[in-house]
Amino acid sequence: MALIVKKFGGSSVATPDKMQSIVQRVLKGMKEDDQVVLVVSAMGDTTDELVSLARQVTSKPYGREMDMLLSTGEQISIALMAMAFAEAGHKAVSFTGAQAGIVTSKAYNKGRILEINAERVKEALQEGNIVIVAGFQGMTDDGDITTLGRGGSDTTAVAVAGAINADACEIYTDVDGIYTSDPRVVPEARKMEEITYGEMLEMAKLGAGVMQPRAVEMGSRFNVPIHVRSTFSEIKGTMIQEGYSMEVKQYLIRGVAEDKNVAKVTILGVPNKPGYAYRIFAELADHNIDVDMIVQSVRVANEGVTDITFTVSRDDSALVRDVLAEIRDELSIEDILIDERMGKVSVVGAGMAGHPGIAASMFGIMSDNGINIEIISTSEISITCLIGEESVDKAVRAIHAHFFDKD
Amino acid sequence: MALIVKKFGGSSVATPDKMQSIVQRVLKGMKEDDQVVLVVSAMGDTTDELVSLARQVTSKPYGREMDMLLSTGEQISIALMAMAFAEAGHKAVSFTGAQAGIVTSKAYNKGRILEINAERVKEALQEGNIVIVAGFQGMTDDGDITTLGRGGSDTTAVAVAGAINADACEIYTDVDGIYTSDPRVVPEARKMEEITYGEMLEMAKLGAGVMQPRAVEMGSRFNVPIHVRSTFSEIKGTMIQEGYSMEVKQYLIRGVAEDKNVAKVTILGVPNKPGYAYRIFAELADHNIDVDMIVQSVRVANEGVTDITFTVSRDDSALVRDVLAEIRDELSIEDILIDERMGKVSVVGAGMAGHPGIAASMFGIMSDNGINIEIISTSEISITCLIGEESVDKAVRAIHAHFFDKD
Repeated sequence: MALIVKKFGGSSVATPDKMQSIVQRVLKGMKEDDQVVLVVSAMGDTTDELVSLARQVTSKPYGREMDMLLSTGEQISIALMAMAFAEAGHKAVSFTGAQAGIVTSKAYNKGRILEINAERVKEALQEGNIVIVAGFQGMTDDGDITTLGRGGSDTTAVAVAGAINADACEIYTDVDGIYTSDPRVVPEARKMEEITYGEMLEMAKLGAGVMQPRAVEMGSRFNVPIHVRSTFSEIKGTMIQEGYSMEVKQYLIRGVAEDKNVAKVTILGVPNKPGYAYRIFAELADHNIDVDMIVQSVRVANEGVTDITFTVSRDDSALVRDVLAEIRDELSIEDILIDERMGKVSVVGAGMAGHPGIAASMFGIMSDNGINIEIISTSEISITCLIGEESVDKAVRAIHAHFFDKD
Repeated sequence: MALIVKKFGGSSVATPDKMQSIVQRVLKGMKEDDQVVLVVSAMGDTTDELVSLARQVTSKPYGREMDMLLSTGEQISIALMAMAFAEAGHKAVSFTGAQAGIVTSKAYNKGRILEINAERVKEALQEGNIVIVAGFQGMTDDGDITTLGRGGSDTTAVAVAGAINADACEIYTDVDGIYTSDPRVVPEARKMEEITYGEMLEMAKLGAGVMQPRAVEMGSRFNVPIHVRSTFSEIKGTMIQEGYSMEVKQYLIRGVAEDKNVAKVTILGVPNKPGYAYRIFAELADHNIDVDMIVQSVRVANEGVTDITFTVSRDDSALVRDVLAEIRDELSIEDILIDERMGKVSVVGAGMAGHPGIAASMFGIMSDNGINIEIISTSEISITCLIGEESVDKAVRAIHAHFFDKD
């Protein structure tokens, strides 16, 4: 007996026909006594159509009402999927995020899963149902509907898998696994059989689009093996898990990731006194803005002030501008500069800690290609360089060729 | 200060433009300190489109999942309406049926409102919001989404008005009030200024399509004055209330109602013993089938058996056939006859009790027009004749002419 959570995205459930294909595939793959939870997204373009309806009514982002609106997309999918399973002769029951016990923070459009009360899901499984849960959504403690933001269905799937102690969470997608780099940029990129949560997290945060970082975090927290695989074939994809299951040939690095959706923010002349930097980042956090690669540089000539540079997602740059404008006078900030045309390139690999030469190689490759590095940040398992957006692809190809094509 | 519930149907909220018109109308009509709850239906054809999606997946009526699906229609409307109010500068908040505290029976597709826990609605009003509630839906005690059946938004509106003790419930519709008969059938039909709950209930049950009978019952139970009026004009419509506010000119009858959606069911040879009729009607009730005009006739020649005739909505006739087939052998029923081409014509009026001549006049008119009456049933305030469907319009016109055109 296995207990599996399977997540299907919007393109997999875009039409009733495609839903019926999934039903056939799921039923064919089930052994007796297997228990299956499906997490599904909204059908095809539904979410975009709902957003477009909202745009006809207002140009403002009314968070609560937008979530009320968008959450209907998945609700339609789960109801139809449950009907499709019943039509195929298998008991099935659908649950909205709220009904599945998914409790989120009160951050509309960007809710975070705080807790899952999975009793209803477990009971329904015990009763022999295939359980179909709406991805991307939950409910606050106050009973307001929230959504988890784009890609939130991955997070739902992994979180539900954790809550019901599933044997694995399968993420069905339009690629057949995780690659050492984006194959559209690096044609030689190879599919990985396995990758650790930590490595995947670095890859995902850096834009390797396949998995939501929050979903990977969830997987790590609850130790749920995540199998990223293709909707269109039966071949094994990539397992994201705690460690490696065997000593296969290991490269020095695991992958080369890139992110072109980056804006660099520089705040000039922040008084170099306790509390000022805190105020800035607390204000950004209050607006749910993720900040990365923070560098603070004290000016030699003027000890009273400091310059702070950090990166944010380009989507947030307008919001950052507004938030900082609000506190600019209060904090006596001299100037705020935002450069939206930035990108990040990273090498990722749990084994790199013992190989100090990797950073040197990376910087050397950048230099050989005439690419200027604006900021460097490192973690236990990654090295990231902030560079101009226009140089990102060239850098990724050169680095990938250096580390992977040697043998 | 007035506390008003306003209900707008699907055609009134069919497009974002129409929603904005409603917003303008509601805001224009509000006095300071007025509190307003809007109950809205799904946009235009949304419900039909959702049903059509379900039909592509299954031909069976999966009650729970169908309600999961259909309830999204209103959820889309309420979210957009709340945004439209906010855009127009007024605080607004939307609630699904469940969030508005509407608890229903577990009868999917035909849920009945058992209770409304209106605390959230009241709080949101206190906070200065226009509150927008999804019509047509609720939630069971177990947390399953239900719908109330077609026209259920009227019921939602009146029930919410009762629960929050509103001063009135306004039902906006595409006609400008309740008429003495269907104007499409009887061009001389007149708009009524007032009608009692009891009279309206008889009119509504008999197919005078404007108001759901259950909504009228709710109004009567909670003594909520219901104002049926036009979406497209400001003129006063018809007030449905406990009694008449003044002694205006009263006709002997208030209206002539018709219903062409009737099937006659005859069960031949039911053993004339205690418990048999009960078994039949209990079985029908268990399937949520509304039964009307019951006649039991004991055969003179054979005292052991009886024939039972009753009417149901034509939509239920296939279900009735199945249900009776199940118990046919057990109850030793001789035969089951269903005639789907029947109709009802009724005269309605609280004042008719003191005028026994009304029934005689009605039968005389039928006879003069060569119309055969199959069953007659009477209540305190109505007389109903079951006749062939093809004669319904003729009968209604003749009766209306007799009672209304005299003076």
